Amino acid sequence: MDKLYVIKIGGNIIDDDAKLASFLKDFSLIQEKKILVHGGGKLATRLAEELGIEQKLLDGRRITDAETLKIVTMVYAGYINKNIIAALQANECNAIGLSGADGDCILAHKRIHPGMDYGFVGDIDVINTKLITTLLEENISIVFAPITHDQQGQLLNTNADTIAQEIAKAMSSNYYVELIYAFEKNGVLLDADDDLSVISELKPVFYKELKDNKKIFAGMIPKLDNAFTALSNGVKKVVIGKAENINQLISGNSGTVITNE
Amino acid sequence: MDKLYVIKIGGNIIDDDAKLASFLKDFSLIQEKKILVHGGGKLATRLAEELGIEQKLLDGRRITDAETLKIVTMVYAGYINKNIIAALQANECNAIGLSGADGDCILAHKRIHPGMDYGFVGDIDVINTKLITTLLEENISIVFAPITHDQQGQLLNTNADTIAQEIAKAMSSNYYVELIYAFEKNGVLLDADDDLSVISELKPVFYKELKDNKKIFAGMIPKLDNAFTALSNGVKKVVIGKAENINQLISGNSGTVITNE
Repeated sequence: MDKLYVIKIGGNIIDDDAKLASFLKDFSLIQEKKILVHGGGKLATRLAEELGIEQKLLDGRRITDAETLKIVTMVYAGYINKNIIAALQANECNAIGLSGADGDCILAHKRIHPGMDYGFVGDIDVINTKLITTLLEENISIVFAPITHDQQGQLLNTNADTIAQEIAKAMSSNYYVELIYAFEKNGVLLDADDDLSVISELKPVFYKELKDNKKIFAGMIPKLDNAFTALSNGVKKVVIGKAENINQLISGNSGTVITNE
Repeated sequence: MDKLYVIKIGGNIIDDDAKLASFLKDFSLIQEKKILVHGGGKLATRLAEELGIEQKLLDGRRITDAETLKIVTMVYAGYINKNIIAALQANECNAIGLSGADGDCILAHKRIHPGMDYGFVGDIDVINTKLITTLLEENISIVFAPITHDQQGQLLNTNADTIAQEIAKAMSSNYYVELIYAFEKNGVLLDADDDLSVISELKPVFYKELKDNKKIFAGMIPKLDNAFTALSNGVKKVVIGKAENINQLISGNSGTVITNE
């Protein structure tokens, strides 16, 4: 099976033009098949502010109302996605930018939650791997914006971490998939205040031990639980580390490498 | 050769939710291979106004400065394009929305004009037909936003009529292409004030005659010149007519049918 990298980048890279340009240059040099999933960044929030659209929070969670959905569709699927594609083309990496509505790649439904309406937020039902596979086999890299659809004509704002995880799982039947979460830290840290305390290898027994002893930063637990779920569903390796070190994350010389055995 | 429809819709349809929904339903029912090219509409202008970005005109021509490019990228390639795709998916038409940067489909250069800087406006150099053909052969319809790129990382605002024409010409080597300009009028009119004065058939000799006698509305001349250029470059038929009548435009029962012989 061919190797496939599914790489997720977050707002801290997207908001920094120089870092993004450098990351995309590195990404272009990856010879294996590759999918990039990007999050949002601050541009959507800034645009909403400029337009006087209030960010609605409910119990501390952000609500995607119709106006906010319009903005994230413009910013994520339009501005950010197309500028990433133009930059990749300039680096001689042939790439295509998609939302989950394109080619029906990511089918989702509006989140159902007892007692809470998140608005136009999508939870993923199905990744349709056919078009994704066709494009990869044509040596076209794919860049997903965190927007999905419900097959009823509704676009939905969807968590980029989850998109990366679901794509990685679904593509595992055809590829040897490595899932890489590129973020602002060097990896999973033993001490949240010490950037050098990176856990280089994380397996289920050690993870349980660390979690039981409350040695994992609470904010990392959902990410790590997701990582182990991905590994239980066909993904071969999950790597968490700094976007600036993408080459070393791929070669296994940086970040936290998470495997099931 | 398979038939391929390349259909261009303009702002008057895009700005009218009900008309757009109805058009997309009709478009979905077209059984042959099909490409849709959409223009912009008033949303970009409205957004620029709300953000206090001044529309710059030079000799009556609109200039695409950096801020305007950002807005049209968001609105055309993001909001409009993805909502069209979601609506097509709801109509069980599998479609993918692309800019010219995606898959390097439309390569352009920043317009060079003696004595006038149009800003980030693109003139088309090459249509790369490979990915377009691959997608069509997978029975995926393609929806192009009027944004291209220059292979140097720069996105460019590009005329949707021209994109439709260039795609139609380029695809003619592999398909029997009909190019349809769907706009607000019933077709090419003999009398601009009489919506019923549609010229049903237009061939070169008759066109020359009408033009010599100044019987063609000046605004239509570039569109018609382009139509005949397309016909001289492999396109089999050009139809100009009302978007609401797309089914009849396709069957040849409405609009102006333009052919070379």
